[in-house]
Order: sequence, then C-alpha cells, then structure tokens
Amino acid sequence: MTREPLTIQRSLLQHQIEELGRHGATDDHGVTRTQYDHAWVGARSALARWFAEAGLEVHGDAAGNLFGRLPGTDTDRTILTGSHLDTVINGGKYDGALGIHAGLAALRALRDTHGPPRRSLEVVALCEEENSRFHGNYFGSRAMLGLIADHEPDTLHDAAGTSLADAMRGAGLEPSRLPEATRTDLDTFLELHIEQGTTLHRSQVPVGVVTSIVGLSWLSITVTGRQDHAGIPMAERHDALRGATRMATAVTDHVHSQVPEAVATIGAWQTLPGATNVVPREVRFTVDLRHPDDTTRYRLVEQITKQCAEIASAQSLEVTVETVWDEPAAPLDSQLRQTLIDTTDTAGHRLTELPSRAVHDSQLLSRHLPTAMLFVPSIDGRSHTPEEHTPLDDCVRGAHALAAALHSLAY
Amino acid sequence: MTREPLTIQRSLLQHQIEELGRHGATDDHGVTRTQYDHAWVGARSALARWFAEAGLEVHGDAAGNLFGRLPGTDTDRTILTGSHLDTVINGGKYDGALGIHAGLAALRALRDTHGPPRRSLEVVALCEEENSRFHGNYFGSRAMLGLIADHEPDTLHDAAGTSLADAMRGAGLEPSRLPEATRTDLDTFLELHIEQGTTLHRSQVPVGVVTSIVGLSWLSITVTGRQDHAGIPMAERHDALRGATRMATAVTDHVHSQVPEAVATIGAWQTLPGATNVVPREVRFTVDLRHPDDTTRYRLVEQITKQCAEIASAQSLEVTVETVWDEPAAPLDSQLRQTLIDTTDTAGHRLTELPSRAVHDSQLLSRHLPTAMLFVPSIDGRSHTPEEHTPLDDCVRGAHALAAALHSLAY
Repeated sequence: MTREPLTIQRSLLQHQIEELGRHGATDDHGVTRTQYDHAWVGARSALARWFAEAGLEVHGDAAGNLFGRLPGTDTDRTILTGSHLDTVINGGKYDGALGIHAGLAALRALRDTHGPPRRSLEVVALCEEENSRFHGNYFGSRAMLGLIADHEPDTLHDAAGTSLADAMRGAGLEPSRLPEATRTDLDTFLELHIEQGTTLHRSQVPVGVVTSIVGLSWLSITVTGRQDHAGIPMAERHDALRGATRMATAVTDHVHSQVPEAVATIGAWQTLPGATNVVPREVRFTVDLRHPDDTTRYRLVEQITKQCAEIASAQSLEVTVETVWDEPAAPLDSQLRQTLIDTTDTAGHRLTELPSRAVHDSQLLSRHLPTAMLFVPSIDGRSHTPEEHTPLDDCVRGAHALAAALHSLAY
Repeated sequence: MTREPLTIQRSLLQHQIEELGRHGATDDHGVTRTQYDHAWVGARSALARWFAEAGLEVHGDAAGNLFGRLPGTDTDRTILTGSHLDTVINGGKYDGALGIHAGLAALRALRDTHGPPRRSLEVVALCEEENSRFHGNYFGSRAMLGLIADHEPDTLHDAAGTSLADAMRGAGLEPSRLPEATRTDLDTFLELHIEQGTTLHRSQVPVGVVTSIVGLSWLSITVTGRQDHAGIPMAERHDALRGATRMATAVTDHVHSQVPEAVATIGAWQTLPGATNVVPREVRFTVDLRHPDDTTRYRLVEQITKQCAEIASAQSLEVTVETVWDEPAAPLDSQLRQTLIDTTDTAGHRLTELPSRAVHDSQLLSRHLPTAMLFVPSIDGRSHTPEEHTPLDDCVRGAHALAAALHSLAY
C-alpha cells in the first residue's frame, strides 16, 4: 500500500457545500430539494460540472442517479461511494449531500496523488432517500439493484397529484428506461453521512465507523374505553386517555432505563372525540422502536405489549398493539469495517464504532453487496432542520478517512 | 300544611316522555333537538298542548321559553320549576326534558288535589342549555334575567352560518323583542334533572338533593420541547410528549387519589408535528377540573401548575398552564334545600345530598334568586347519549318529591 499523503482541498469542499445548498435554499437558511424538482435538477447539473472538473467520467442513469467514475486499470468491477441528493422539507446542507461532497473530494485527491486505480471507483449522487416528495423508498438504490416495480412510476404520486412518471419526464428522464439503471458491477458501497445523533459530537470524535443500522418496529397502539360526561366520578370512568398516558410513560421509561442501545419515540397521538369536557373513548398512538439487535427489539415489542395489556386491564380498558412496519437491523460488512478502522487509524485520527439509529441507503444496499458507513459529527446531533451543521474540519477529516479507505480497497 | 296524598299520573308521564322524544328522534334511538330547529318547534307545540290540557295558563316569551302557569290566589310572585328543552347532538330523552315533564306532572297533581295555590306556580321549558347549535350560554335563563346583549342575535351563528336572529324568525320569534322576556316576578327556581354521575344509581337512592353545582376550571397546558429525529438517544431529547404524558398521569392520579370530591378530565390533546418518526416539539392538552369548593379548586390548579413545572424542569422542557375558563361553584339555597329534604322525607323516600358535577341553568339562576335542584338517577350515570335512561319508577318519585316541595312552598 502506498503511503503518499492524501490532501483534501479544504476551501473547494467548503465552497461546494455552500453552492449545492443554494439549490433549494429556503427563507430561513434551510434547504428543500425533493426528487425531480427544480432545485434537484439544478443541484444535479452543478454536481455533473464538478465531477467533470475533477477528471471523473460523468454519467447518469434512468432513475436520475448521477455518477463520477475513475476507471480501474485492472477491472471494471466498481467500488461505489456517495449518498443522496434530496433533502427533507426545510432540511439542511449536510444530510445526504456531505456524502456526495466527501466522495468527490476523495476521488479527486486519489486521482491527483495516485493516478488511476486498479479497481474502478465511482461517486454517486443518489436521486432519493428522504421520501419527502414521493414515497420513493430508496428509489435511487432500488433502481441500481433492479428493484423498482413496473407500476411504480404511474402509481406513486406527490401531494399535488403529480405522478412520479410525469415528474421524471419533467426532469428529462424516461420512466420506461428504468430497468436500464440496474448495475451488476458493484462490489462495494461506502457511504459517509452525518451522524443523526450525538455520540460523536458529545465525545468530540471526528469520525466514526458504523457497526450496523438499527432494526425498526413501528407499533400502532389503540386504547379503547368509554366516552362519558366530564362530571362522572373518576373511579367510575373507563378513560382511554388516562390509560394511554400511563402506557406511554411506562413504555418510554422502560426502554430508556432498561435497554441502553434502544430508542423509543411516541410521535403521533390521536384522542377521540377530543373535546375538553368529554372523557375520551379512544386514543391511538404510535411507537417507533429502534435497536441494533433484532432479537432484543422483538423482546422489547413483547414487553411493550405486555405493559400496555397490564395497564389496560388495571383500568378496565381494551388495548391492541399492532406492528405496522418491521425493518430488520442491517449489520455492516465486518471486513470493510476493519478496513475503515485500519485506514482511518493510520491517518492519525481518533475513531469510534457506533450503530446508526437512522435509516440510510446503506441499509438496503448492505443486503446486496458489502457495505460500510462512516459518520461525521453533526452539532448537537441535529438533522432534518436548517440548523444541522458539521464543522469544516470534521468534513475534511471525514473525506480524508473515506479517501484512505478507498485507496486501500482500489489501489 | 295539608297532607292529602299527591298522585303523579304514571302512564301519562311515560307517554309524554316517549312522545317528546319523537321530536328530533335519530336513527339510533337518540334525540337531536337544538335551539329553534324543526324538532324544537314541534316539541314546544306538544308541550303547549299538554300544559293547556293540564289546566295551566300557557304563555311563551320572546326567547322561546314556554310557560304553564297556575296563578296564585294571594300573589303574582312566582315559584318556577322546569328545565331545558334542547339536547346535545344525539342525546337522549331525559337530560333536560325530564325536568319539564316532572314540573308539568307536579303542577297537574297539585291543581287536581289542592286547587289553586296561594303563590303562583309555573313550569318552564327553557329554550337552550346545551350550546349544541349556537353558543347560547343559558340563552333561556339569560333572557328571563335580562342578560342578553343587544348584538347577540346577529353575532351568534350556527355551524351552517345561520344567525341566531334568523333562526329565531324561522321559529316565529322576533329578536328585537328579547328584552320583553325579562321576568321580575320570580322568587324561586326548582329544577329536577337526571344526575350525570353515578352516586344515586350506585347507591340505589331514587331522589337526591343537590348541595351545590361544582365550580369549574378549564386549563390549557402547553409543553414545549425540541423536535428531533427519532434516532436521537433518549437521554439527549427534549421530548414534549414524554413530558406531557407524565404530567397527565401525575395530574389525574393526584386529583383522583387526594381530592375525593374533585374530577379532572383531560379531553383534548394535540401533538406537534405528529409524525411517527419525529420527537414531538410541542404538546397541548386541556384539563377540565371540577370541585364544589372554589378554594379547594384554586388550590388544585396551583398544585397542577406546580406538578407540571416540576416535571418540565426535570425533563428540560418548558410548560405554560393557562386558565381559559373559571366558573365559580354555585351553592344552592340552604332554606330551599331544607324544604326539599323535609318534604321528600315525608313522602317516605330515601334521599341523599350530593353535589352536581355538571353545569345547569340553576348555576346561573342561583346567582339571582333562591334556587335548588333535585336529582334522579340515570342508569350507570350515562348522559349525552341515546343510552341515557331513568326508570319510570324513579321519574315518578322525582315528580312526586318536586310536587311535595312546591306544595310546601306555594300552598
């Protein structure tokens, strides 16, 4: 392995982060850039120009994924890096985008220092991950894997009623050619992303290697009681809300205190009939439960179900707990993780291993090819907000770690 | 005091309860009869006929209140009994209506047995109490007290946009004549009503004397945290919903376990932004708090405010507790209550004294003239539902107790 120092062009990286953030800029310094919209088209054009300026071969696919390629001297098999180009509504400049910026900076540094690689390297701007316009469900990654059903372009619609097919045509893409986006040459995917959590930020570690992407359960819990006049003595009530608030407290306290690596979020809550002077007859709420180990997660779902049943029984209520989404955990490739640990260590940075509690394209791709992820800190763990921010030093260190790993894999 | 037995016409009472319930009958055996609507007009006509058949002088006022009068031989000063003619949306045949039926049955029995009273007696069907079409806010009682502002007929509108003035005209009433509805001859108000609670039903007591109508606080509680991605570690969150559910449990547990005569209801609940995978930034919920003693109720509001502040502080949240409605308790007239106790006892019935945890016309009227209330049981304490039901035996006993008290007061 050659040991020439790799140099990330710091001011260029900063410039491109700011420039890309102008595509979809919102009034309060956020970014709204959704699949195939005007901002997305503009951002993609800017990236194509920067890819070419870095000496990469630029090509796009039928789904709108954009690639910058450094062809290998020994093989056309490809090591892919990158992340998604789209944002949530009023998100920031780093979630997704930074993985593309870092991939571009890494490939530029490798080409400038080491010339052409033995194995082909590519950086990708994936067309969609956030589901913020269509329920794309990793549309770019699925296109590369040949996993998009024929009907999807016509059956997926945005909130304004536009079909995905029409939105594609508006962005200069042809829906019928989607199958051509399938890639069979991919050997590896490496994704750099901001940590949507505080582990790195709190411990002041600039780069982390992701062990696995957490598994996820979405539970829908319905508590049924009896609607009554607000004058009824409390002992006589079957108060659905009183049961539901006790369940919510019990569930979150249990997960928080007993299962350190788990997170439970109660995000949606509906009270019926919802009048100030009426004892609620029904409350529906959701639990978003995440844990790196599926066995532990399923045990937690059982415990939550039992806790809710016990509280319902004690308060003469009915309760149902339904799993509406179950996404298995995605352990990332151990060999690639070791490569990341080895190469990042040799670059002299401190490093930690941590799970991802957010979902990523890597969650899907890891089921089809060896995949690993690098995290860089986001201040206070903020993401999906205009306030998300990663200091430039950490962006540079992340890009450098990515370049070192790609060098180890491709040269 | 004469002691001739008073006889309530049992089958006539039953017939009239059923007949009045046909005006506004709903598909599921409930009643929807709102101020000035078609059902209300029909019900009022039926009552006018029955009042006349019982030998009472029938008159209506400009607000639509309907009276049946038994003039006194000694004075035109009037003892009034009755209740409201309107219902909630899909309510039942007893809430309100039974007080009119019982008043009519009592006056008929008194006239038939004892002839004309010394003091004038009247039964009233009050035009509105439930706020189920307009925000009438005791429209009938306020009209009798001269408390309706000039602008109200034109500024109050129903959900369809009809002004109260137009609705009045549709029912044959003239809004400009509302001031003429003011009564200055009322000495006493006695209201019989179903108990909207279970005290009488559980203890199998057929008639209760109301000590006071509870005071009421409506609190609006806003818990503010920080919106975050559902992957954020639980210890790092400022989760508004987690704080709010703990507050709700603490508040209801405290009121239920520490303050036997109080009731607290959390009926409305809003979670923002309300997405399954987003830690809520804000939760707003209401507390409906009722207690017969205002000092105790205000102390409870202070305790609730303190509890919420402590929980918010422990969870790094902000909380505001705002009183949006404060209705003082209405202690009922002690001399009238004693009359009810004395006369109902002599009729041989068991009897209990209890507070009303629901609001009634009597709450307003008691601030202007000596007022008392009789309660009869409602099965399981149900009200504001097609299922509300008071057995005929209890209706007869209630009407009898009312007649005995009116006899004591007017003869």
